[in-house]
Amino acid sequence: MASLPNGAGAAAAASGSSGARPVDKEVDFANYFCTYAYLYHQKEMLCDRVRMDAYHSAVFRNAPHFQGKVVLDVGTGSGILAIWSAQAGARKVYAVEATNMAEHARELARANGVADIVEVIQGTVEDVELPEKVDVIISEWMGYFLLRESMFDSVISARDRWLKPDGVMYPSHARMWLAPIRTGLGDKKREDFDIAMDDWSLFVQDTQTYYGVNMNALTKAYRSEHEKYYLKSSIWNNLHPNQVIGQPAAIKEIDCLTATVDEIREVRAQVTLPLTMDARLSALAGWFDVHFRGSAQNPGVEEIELTTAPDEHGGTHWGQQVFLLTPPLSVTKGDNVNVSFSMVRSKENHRLMDMEFTYELHELSGRKHPAVTTKMYLE
Amino acid sequence: MASLPNGAGAAAAASGSSGARPVDKEVDFANYFCTYAYLYHQKEMLCDRVRMDAYHSAVFRNAPHFQGKVVLDVGTGSGILAIWSAQAGARKVYAVEATNMAEHARELARANGVADIVEVIQGTVEDVELPEKVDVIISEWMGYFLLRESMFDSVISARDRWLKPDGVMYPSHARMWLAPIRTGLGDKKREDFDIAMDDWSLFVQDTQTYYGVNMNALTKAYRSEHEKYYLKSSIWNNLHPNQVIGQPAAIKEIDCLTATVDEIREVRAQVTLPLTMDARLSALAGWFDVHFRGSAQNPGVEEIELTTAPDEHGGTHWGQQVFLLTPPLSVTKGDNVNVSFSMVRSKENHRLMDMEFTYELHELSGRKHPAVTTKMYLE
Repeated sequence: MASLPNGAGAAAAASGSSGARPVDKEVDFANYFCTYAYLYHQKEMLCDRVRMDAYHSAVFRNAPHFQGKVVLDVGTGSGILAIWSAQAGARKVYAVEATNMAEHARELARANGVADIVEVIQGTVEDVELPEKVDVIISEWMGYFLLRESMFDSVISARDRWLKPDGVMYPSHARMWLAPIRTGLGDKKREDFDIAMDDWSLFVQDTQTYYGVNMNALTKAYRSEHEKYYLKSSIWNNLHPNQVIGQPAAIKEIDCLTATVDEIREVRAQVTLPLTMDARLSALAGWFDVHFRGSAQNPGVEEIELTTAPDEHGGTHWGQQVFLLTPPLSVTKGDNVNVSFSMVRSKENHRLMDMEFTYELHELSGRKHPAVTTKMYLE
Repeated sequence: MASLPNGAGAAAAASGSSGARPVDKEVDFANYFCTYAYLYHQKEMLCDRVRMDAYHSAVFRNAPHFQGKVVLDVGTGSGILAIWSAQAGARKVYAVEATNMAEHARELARANGVADIVEVIQGTVEDVELPEKVDVIISEWMGYFLLRESMFDSVISARDRWLKPDGVMYPSHARMWLAPIRTGLGDKKREDFDIAMDDWSLFVQDTQTYYGVNMNALTKAYRSEHEKYYLKSSIWNNLHPNQVIGQPAAIKEIDCLTATVDEIREVRAQVTLPLTMDARLSALAGWFDVHFRGSAQNPGVEEIELTTAPDEHGGTHWGQQVFLLTPPLSVTKGDNVNVSFSMVRSKENHRLMDMEFTYELHELSGRKHPAVTTKMYLE
């Protein structure tokens, strides 16, 4: 048969099940954790200067949170946050990593002279047993549009099991943003979609002519598979700030010290996005920021922000997620677009997200356009 | 963290286990079967004219094998082989498919008027119960270099459980080939590898300078990961016949009627490849062919061949697998290259293959070059 490279594409359209299932740990490992066992992927994250600078500043400018303290690093990867915590003065750092990358983290701690402080534990944090409670939980758990990967669940579990009552979370707060944008990405995708469908028509003709089988019964399913792929899957992009044509709105705020899985399992928001220029509204974009400010009880020395908003000086490896609007709308400065947004976890894979957008243009003139509803997938 | 698209890359470097494990069915589904649930992938196979022509001829030019008979199609996908079997006169066709593609196969059988003959059963063939034995097993089970995907195991299981003693296999025979070739692919890969390593050096410097962490402890592991990726992973390519610079050798022959899993779990061969031109021997290439000739007891009307050898009139979706030799060797017409070859299943994923090549150039002049041994991975 000759399938694609192993695992590519994958889980979303796969399963025979039609409802939510308990997570199979081995499947989750094959689908998700495995990527983090590769050094090329660790390096990609370690080369993200925005990410690195933010965490580095968060730790070293708030050294009092670390000095003489016990730290838990959830998903340590190559171990960088654990090593920084030790360098900032931690008495002990428990660095938990599910993949074989744990061995590399151990080597790195040794080579950087902190092997007596950093204890790397290979396993999932939900299963780990520590000999003591911790003062700080540090983790870089954010996925695309913040919640893809659902890794914050593991941080919550770690917090509820191991954080002291006056402990602090690094980061301490997180927010999701939505903004109206202009982009040419949709034109290319719509063209690719049209080409794919034209090609399908030829294929249907050829298969009838040469092989005596009418494939037309699958045209609808083929269209729907390709619509999802080209038009309804969010697109990774590092936007320029001048592509943002209206005011962004925060659609979700998370206090990492108190958030529950129930609070993040679904995200629902209704926002009005005021348009600030005459432009073609061709998509909405989503991104996130996180803050390091300790807790009310135990504030940091200096608040540090890590934002993945469009930035003309360069982006992050997270980029932004672009959600195409089909068709695009011509908008004028002063118009508003009302957006109802919902995001839930995919039934087939709890680390991927199914979204629904309803958007409605209210022109400054008073004219209201009909509301349009579209599903989008973050895979 | 922001991982790659779901599942990409995947299983080979992932697992914490160090030995062979029993296959976890759910993991296998996530890693393997899922790809076949996409119509774009079915279409890719259905557009492979070499593949389609061979199976179409095999069925319709050997219609007596099908007329009034009971057929089992293992891994029917969109159902094309099952529909052809019905069109060729089968009394009943059991079409087994593990993924949700089964529903599309059912629709297609209906739309082509053979729903009363083709019974699509969703499940793995190992678990399926049929009400009767079958006269023919048809299947398109071949992966890259024949055995990638290890799908023939399922065909063997189906044969041993359901084929009548005088039944026939479609295809009936399969062979694996190895040949000496010239190609520029290795130069590009070696360049990419060097760039990746230079880039790593800069990264090590920068991480020390800006973030106070010495990453050099991971240099060896990074090199080894990237060597595997760039230089030791076989490369898909459709070669031109003039890239073949010596005589190909058959390294494995399989009689589909009698082969056991033990016979295909490992492939070992020692061959001498005579070089037929002055050239740079930069790689070995592997491909396969299969034949449809019925059985000794029940021969076909016309023998049909499906070959994936290099062909100037165009290739197949299987292409050939290119195994780079580093460094390349200058060879002269009349030289021989002796190759010892072994292929075993990867410990982490039984559908992927680990290979070892030992090659030794014997010049026509009598000079013998030292033997070189290299591992290669078919992923």
